[in-house]
Amino acid sequence: MAALNVFPAEWRRGVYEAIARRRDIRSFRPDPIAPDALARILSAAHHAGSVGFSQPWNFIVVDDLELRRKIHDHVDAERLRAAEGFEAERKAQYLSFKLEGILEAPLNLCVTCDRTRFGPAIIGRNTIFDTDIYSTCVAIQNLWLAARAEGIGVGWVSILKPEVLQQILGIPDHVVVVGYMCVGYPVEFAQRPLLEAVGWLPRLPLSELVFSNRWKGAPGGELASALRDVDQNAAHQNAAQLRPPPSETDR
Amino acid sequence: MAALNVFPAEWRRGVYEAIARRRDIRSFRPDPIAPDALARILSAAHHAGSVGFSQPWNFIVVDDLELRRKIHDHVDAERLRAAEGFEAERKAQYLSFKLEGILEAPLNLCVTCDRTRFGPAIIGRNTIFDTDIYSTCVAIQNLWLAARAEGIGVGWVSILKPEVLQQILGIPDHVVVVGYMCVGYPVEFAQRPLLEAVGWLPRLPLSELVFSNRWKGAPGGELASALRDVDQNAAHQNAAQLRPPPSETDR
Repeated sequence: MAALNVFPAEWRRGVYEAIARRRDIRSFRPDPIAPDALARILSAAHHAGSVGFSQPWNFIVVDDLELRRKIHDHVDAERLRAAEGFEAERKAQYLSFKLEGILEAPLNLCVTCDRTRFGPAIIGRNTIFDTDIYSTCVAIQNLWLAARAEGIGVGWVSILKPEVLQQILGIPDHVVVVGYMCVGYPVEFAQRPLLEAVGWLPRLPLSELVFSNRWKGAPGGELASALRDVDQNAAHQNAAQLRPPPSETDR
Repeated sequence: MAALNVFPAEWRRGVYEAIARRRDIRSFRPDPIAPDALARILSAAHHAGSVGFSQPWNFIVVDDLELRRKIHDHVDAERLRAAEGFEAERKAQYLSFKLEGILEAPLNLCVTCDRTRFGPAIIGRNTIFDTDIYSTCVAIQNLWLAARAEGIGVGWVSILKPEVLQQILGIPDHVVVVGYMCVGYPVEFAQRPLLEAVGWLPRLPLSELVFSNRWKGAPGGELASALRDVDQNAAHQNAAQLRPPPSETDR
């Protein structure tokens, strides 16, 4: 029966804890990532679903410091350019944020999407050409969550021009850079996302994001009440401390 | 220290098991999804990282049968149209695949991305405009994995024109349809993805997808060996049975 497929409580908890404790990490310890841990999180990415089983991704492990310096210089220039989009006070706050750990993380990971892989006819890609990129994104989330379970932090750096990375890393034209990630052991997994914690933007209530049958359609009574419960629990959790996971030896 | 952040073994296992056992589900039992379970998996989606904390997503729960019939008719027409992209034998095999469970699943979920939310200036979205869509994709993966832990199946239907869905569900122009999901208790979580199991396309070896420092750069000895180990374990797992998760009462 259906119940047979439900995970045992501790497995289920692990999934929800990884989702709740995953953070975009920008400050890293210098400790290297063991090759077998790196292989496990890359394998997690590779086991994402992909449109038509096209597996369009590649992963370039970047540890060369010379390459990373070039990439860092580009990202920093774009970061400063972006500051012009914010007004006075907002701009100063924006400039105070640490947005990446390209040089301090032990490695970077460039995640790409080969737009021609197994193509041109791919099941499920006939109406939305970008579904290959969507697949690459869900692979990144697998990696991000697996990394969290391993105590490894991942930070997604998106303040960059894909074509510049393409040139620096020798990526051909039919392959698109989707994500550039910093990977390493974090200084901390913070309680809340930085931009929420500092009040840059508020966490939206889930109950305002869910509609029924039409855009803006109000969910029925039971679902509406379940969504409000989730929002209340989230508010409660933010007030309390998110404790570190129990260590093996504690248990 | 770093080790403190590592999840306890059973939590970690849960994350990896969800990743390994997640499937794109196309055959569903009629049993309804309890509102609290639905709220939990939606909350998992909402706790994904998003570019500049913009949380650009909405979730339209579609259970109205009349709406679903319209959507199903459109998807089926596009499915037949796509068949023309395959030659003789491939075409017959393609047409034999069950690709969606829009009508039989207890509910569908339209996941959208509001391109204007908190904008126009969003941290991290100044160089890649589509990062809001990337965020919506990683949210979908959170939902997919949380659903797997709950024993709930999710199938991503991408053979559709977003603008048709937009019209059917009354979604405004500044909001993009990213994913249309069928959600319900599955007939089974199959051992392997359908298109792999039937030999439509092969699973690529991870060791061929990972590069070092440059496109096509060969990884160093230790990482190369760890990647080969992962590939060997995966081949081994495919040969063995992926057993159902142990139930609570078994433990």
